[in-house]
Amino acid sequence: MAILPVMAITRSDVAERLAEIGRRFDQRGWMLGTSGNLSGVIEREPLRLAITASGTPKGELSADQILEIDVTGAVTHGVGVPSAEARLHVEVVRARGAGAVLHTHSIWSTLLSDRHAATGGLVIEGYEMLKGLEGVKTHEHREWIPVLENDQDMPRLAGRLQEVLSRNPTCHAFLLRRHGMYTWGDSLAQAVRHVEIVEFLLEAVARADQLASWDAREQTRPGHQ
Amino acid sequence: MAILPVMAITRSDVAERLAEIGRRFDQRGWMLGTSGNLSGVIEREPLRLAITASGTPKGELSADQILEIDVTGAVTHGVGVPSAEARLHVEVVRARGAGAVLHTHSIWSTLLSDRHAATGGLVIEGYEMLKGLEGVKTHEHREWIPVLENDQDMPRLAGRLQEVLSRNPTCHAFLLRRHGMYTWGDSLAQAVRHVEIVEFLLEAVARADQLASWDAREQTRPGHQ
Amino acid sequence: MAILPVMAITRSDVAERLAEIGRRFDQRGWMLGTSGNLSGVIEREPLRLAITASGTPKGELSADQILEIDVTGAVTHGVGVPSAEARLHVEVVRARGAGAVLHTHSIWSTLLSDRHAATGGLVIEGYEMLKGLEGVKTHEHREWIPVLENDQDMPRLAGRLQEVLSRNPTCHAFLLRRHGMYTWGDSLAQAVRHVEIVEFLLEAVARADQLASWDAREQTRPGHQ
Amino acid sequence: MAILPVMAITRSDVAERLAEIGRRFDQRGWMLGTSGNLSGVIEREPLRLAITASGTPKGELSADQILEIDVTGAVTHGVGVPSAEARLHVEVVRARGAGAVLHTHSIWSTLLSDRHAATGGLVIEGYEMLKGLEGVKTHEHREWIPVLENDQDMPRLAGRLQEVLSRNPTCHAFLLRRHGMYTWGDSLAQAVRHVEIVEFLLEAVARADQLASWDAREQTRPGHQ
Repeated sequence: MAILPVMAITRSDVAERLAEIGRRFDQRGWMLGTSGNLSGVIEREPLRLAITASGTPKGELSADQILEIDVTGAVTHGVGVPSAEARLHVEVVRARGAGAVLHTHSIWSTLLSDRHAATGGLVIEGYEMLKGLEGVKTHEHREWIPVLENDQDMPRLAGRLQEVLSRNPTCHAFLLRRHGMYTWGDSLAQAVRHVEIVEFLLEAVARADQLASWDAREQTRPGHQ
Repeated sequence: MAILPVMAITRSDVAERLAEIGRRFDQRGWMLGTSGNLSGVIEREPLRLAITASGTPKGELSADQILEIDVTGAVTHGVGVPSAEARLHVEVVRARGAGAVLHTHSIWSTLLSDRHAATGGLVIEGYEMLKGLEGVKTHEHREWIPVLENDQDMPRLAGRLQEVLSRNPTCHAFLLRRHGMYTWGDSLAQAVRHVEIVEFLLEAVARADQLASWDAREQTRPGHQ
Repeated sequence: MAILPVMAITRSDVAERLAEIGRRFDQRGWMLGTSGNLSGVIEREPLRLAITASGTPKGELSADQILEIDVTGAVTHGVGVPSAEARLHVEVVRARGAGAVLHTHSIWSTLLSDRHAATGGLVIEGYEMLKGLEGVKTHEHREWIPVLENDQDMPRLAGRLQEVLSRNPTCHAFLLRRHGMYTWGDSLAQAVRHVEIVEFLLEAVARADQLASWDAREQTRPGHQ
Repeated sequence: MAILPVMAITRSDVAERLAEIGRRFDQRGWMLGTSGNLSGVIEREPLRLAITASGTPKGELSADQILEIDVTGAVTHGVGVPSAEARLHVEVVRARGAGAVLHTHSIWSTLLSDRHAATGGLVIEGYEMLKGLEGVKTHEHREWIPVLENDQDMPRLAGRLQEVLSRNPTCHAFLLRRHGMYTWGDSLAQAVRHVEIVEFLLEAVARADQLASWDAREQTRPGHQ
């Protein structure tokens, strides 16, 4: 992580790529109504992070709506207000050495975050798609996705996140209850892959539960043999 | 509201933007079969409102299919018939000082409007997405979405709407039973955001009900522990 | 119907428009895997009908994949084989004086055609979207959508269709069991509107059934008050 | 199969077409997060197969991300690593004389592969869409779709596949449990049609099960007549 890449990534490269990602995820219905935020590391020491400005509709996202912030969340380039959740992005970059952090608001992450809040998370295992998560080599992998209670107090939430990330050093994503999903990656490309993999798995798990319940039901139905 | 913006919005600006919104919402399946209508205020005193002509397919909506009407609903520019529901748009502009009113016909608003008609509306609370509604600062917000019985008698429906809006001075949207959803905003951008937020929340609430029922069911299933 | 329009519609106009419609419906998932077929009347006396050739993927449909056939189904222009179901298109044009006939294969029409086969059709009523069907003035309209048993014997199926259309002189659409939906209109634009309206209503009805069952279930659940 | 087509298909033709297919299927949500792989035969004797490189996002797939491999899976043209599953593609080409093999990761194939793993497959019958499968002439066709247990040991999985294909000489597709779907065709166009048909049928079957369960449930509900 301390070693700089041979070819420097420029702020405008990252901004262009974030804008494309926003437009793409908007089409999937994962960033409706200006929700969600996207960031990519421009430089590590000292940290310069490109991040979507607050209140931007992602379906029309353009590179000039991407801000640059420092480790304290202060804007060092661009016009606009970074999301209050910028702090969580910085926390993930710090804790995981991530090169990109992406946060979506999908229907399925919203529902499953609520359903599994009481147990602090959910297990996903046995799916081939798990191999899309960096470092996972087999579908027999058991992925724990922590769920954090939603909170408007960002310092407090960032503190709890730090704890959760340190207690779960190998997790690839987390959910905020009735709020949405965060994932990350070494690069923007890897983080995009992780979003698509986790969103797919959450939908699969939720729909599988519904189908499985039908089956369970069938077997206990009076008169059924 | 009495103060004019420094730079005047022209009729053609509003018409272009409404056409874009129509094409976008059509892609989401919220305006199928020429359904729904979209309006934006051009001038307030006297009221000049740009509004989609009746019977236009929204997937190919163009600026020349947008009419200008006055406060009585009479066409003051353009060729075509305004929707019979233009009266509801004018009512919302008057009651809320809205700069734009958008009306969609989605599957989820159709279903939930029916499901919650008997109680006159539904509560949505605890979702981060609620913060996309203007003035809402926390997911702990409790949003009441009134449901009005559908009616082909527009003066009567407009009268009931006036009453509902005055009884619910802070609501951001309402449903017409087995018909669709209305929301609004100070600007077109804000109204678009409200459509996306409310449509997302309605889908989340409906699907959460289905998942929660499974869970309740599981617990009462004979032989389940 | 005997009166020719002032401006003649050319074969290539109809072909271009059918190709656009095919690409649009493919995106909605209503014509997957070369399924479905689309036709528009070029001339009535004698009948010349533009119709999609058999086996064309609708996502890439182009005007040169549209054939012209006569009342017997013989190709009078273009290269290719018309769908075996061309006979049903001709039947609808004859029975209803339609200017366009569109046939889609959606998930919801497939499912509901099976679910309601035993009663020979389904009623849809109380939805505002019904007003998108030509001649319907109120959501209180009661639309009967006949379901015909699927059949590979086209003369026999066309005979049954003739009977069903004559017994249901005001219906706007029919389903073939576990097969798909047919609707029509005076013009291509009207027929497109009917497709979107009927597909919307079928999805609404199917999903409403699922939600309503939950509610019924809740009320009979042991321990529920 | 031994007879060469009059006009030779070039590697770049196949690569361009595979890239288009990838982008199209990505839009449908069938190849999220770099999942799935696509191949087309360039030459049969000796076998030269164009195939997607491992780890490519399909939404931006371009022809230069397509590799050429021989019958052993060794790369004979292009830069990159072929998917570990290239072996399964070669197996299908060999066993079926296929000209193209397409592998998708959809929600519905993932769920149904799990649901029907215990019985080794599922039957689909009675749907008109079955006629989209090569050689099927009537909706009364009974299609058996085998399900294989997922496995990271490719030689072992290829061995089991060989057995399954030889035991089911007329099947058009198979599923890997909690993994995805494989289908094929004489040409790329036919294989694309098969993907769309099988994906449609899997969704229809899964949703029909849910609706049917409701109906069964209704009839056994206490107090229901």
